[in-house]
Amino acid sequence: MHALLCRQPPELVTDHAEPVRRSGEALIKLRVAGVCDTDLALSRGYMGFRGVLGHEFVGEVLEAEGTAWRGKRVVADINAGCGRCADCTLRGGHHCRERTVLGIAGRDGAFAERFTVPERCLVAVPDALPDDRAVFAEPLAAALHVLDDLPGDEGPIIVLGDGKLGQLVARAVLSRGRRTVVIGHHEAKLALARTAGAEAVLERDLGTALDGAPAVVEATGSASGIALAFRLARPRGTVILKTTISGPTTVDLSPAVINELRVVGSRCGDLSRAIDALAGGSIDPADLIVARYPLARADAALAHAATPGTLKVLVDG
Amino acid sequence: MHALLCRQPPELVTDHAEPVRRSGEALIKLRVAGVCDTDLALSRGYMGFRGVLGHEFVGEVLEAEGTAWRGKRVVADINAGCGRCADCTLRGGHHCRERTVLGIAGRDGAFAERFTVPERCLVAVPDALPDDRAVFAEPLAAALHVLDDLPGDEGPIIVLGDGKLGQLVARAVLSRGRRTVVIGHHEAKLALARTAGAEAVLERDLGTALDGAPAVVEATGSASGIALAFRLARPRGTVILKTTISGPTTVDLSPAVINELRVVGSRCGDLSRAIDALAGGSIDPADLIVARYPLARADAALAHAATPGTLKVLVDG
Repeated sequence: MHALLCRQPPELVTDHAEPVRRSGEALIKLRVAGVCDTDLALSRGYMGFRGVLGHEFVGEVLEAEGTAWRGKRVVADINAGCGRCADCTLRGGHHCRERTVLGIAGRDGAFAERFTVPERCLVAVPDALPDDRAVFAEPLAAALHVLDDLPGDEGPIIVLGDGKLGQLVARAVLSRGRRTVVIGHHEAKLALARTAGAEAVLERDLGTALDGAPAVVEATGSASGIALAFRLARPRGTVILKTTISGPTTVDLSPAVINELRVVGSRCGDLSRAIDALAGGSIDPADLIVARYPLARADAALAHAATPGTLKVLVDG
Repeated sequence: MHALLCRQPPELVTDHAEPVRRSGEALIKLRVAGVCDTDLALSRGYMGFRGVLGHEFVGEVLEAEGTAWRGKRVVADINAGCGRCADCTLRGGHHCRERTVLGIAGRDGAFAERFTVPERCLVAVPDALPDDRAVFAEPLAAALHVLDDLPGDEGPIIVLGDGKLGQLVARAVLSRGRRTVVIGHHEAKLALARTAGAEAVLERDLGTALDGAPAVVEATGSASGIALAFRLARPRGTVILKTTISGPTTVDLSPAVINELRVVGSRCGDLSRAIDALAGGSIDPADLIVARYPLARADAALAHAATPGTLKVLVDG
């Protein structure tokens, strides 16, 4: 079958072995997948992953333990924990030490005709929710997870980065009714954020009016973004690190101590929460889609997504 | 009068001008002062400070607005805010944008025969509390401030660093009845921590038994300390940055995101809380004193304190 392997560059193969469904797992047929910046980082060697890429998807269940899931459209939590440890049983398993992560660590991903996911990770997609919205469930869940760390005090929430993740984070914060300011480098993408209801400012036009924000979400994945977040956050304010920078970063941490900032790492979120927001219509990210490719050209989809300034590229199963 | 100026190296002068007491300030006569690593950093150029060094002290009030303070033994909050902004009126002024900081920024410090401090920063020293304990009020207040950010869940609190600050942080955490493990490089200093009731481990003997701690307090002021803190903290655990590293630091921040750590900067604390702990006897740091010098030899005191492995050096007024 077709699958996109994590190589440098990513390699599309046509003879990838069919996945073997293990006990407790569902066999999924791909309907549509989304390209994430993490896919690009993985294909440059991040995490040392060598399997099938892809972790944002909508699929159809072909086989599962019982018959309840069969034929259903689903998305899934990408963290497949052991299911037995305290983290899995009490806290959702995102930090299970034995976890595999779909298309990222220890588990083949969704840029393939078929793949497997533990049944306990599945979330059903309501009939009325189209694939092209449901495919945002995984990154939107991560974006909505920001809400778990926002302080309650007044003032604008700053989102650094006008890319895919920054756009979703801005919509997540807006959905909570908070004033939201996106700071980025691309006028066209800032215009999209404005359409969604955010204020938006080119970083080069940034004065000091936003200094002292209660919370800054770093979604640029750059050392300069972290430095800017440290500058903009008010004393005792919150900086949420939403993107992983792989490897050593050179950054001046002294503002975090002097201003007693609370710097919070934020990774994956709750897929059900994202599906609810998408199905309820409070967040509609469909305008972020800029291109789509068939699975047989998934390598071209990743190359397109790697072009600077590109928003969401989809891969059709 | 004698004063120790922030130069490279620090310069003891005998003809420093007498301080002028302004409205709302108290004129203080030095009784005893402590040398802090920040004094050493300042004398290497940190913050660009050029005034009189010294911010840990016990003094006697010579003059103040009324007569209430006159003759009293006092310590003081080193942060002298404007007294009018929201930070000063609601939150103690540690983050007032116009603040001066005794012996650190914009205000001459305590390594002098006389100096001034705003009256609202003063805290009285109870008669029964000797100078050599009260002089720890400022650094102990900073150490006790760690308690404001400790999570409530079970497991040992790790303190990285067996120096002056690490020792005080360990005693602060112990005073809360929490299991405390100090990790350091010096067997003699680790023995002091054990005497105070902590467990203590040489870093080179550190296995994996402490991995997964609910909170790690970084008190080494080094990039390697931050990396170790990120390694030891459990997922969603707390890392408290208790020391400022001036300038750029190269550190891998990805564990903070992947493990969703909460990294909290922690600076100064409440002097009254420290005086209460010292007067009540729940914390006795007198065993950390290793040397004392007269003010006329304060330059030698700083040189002594700069010797690796040195604990608290005092300067007598």
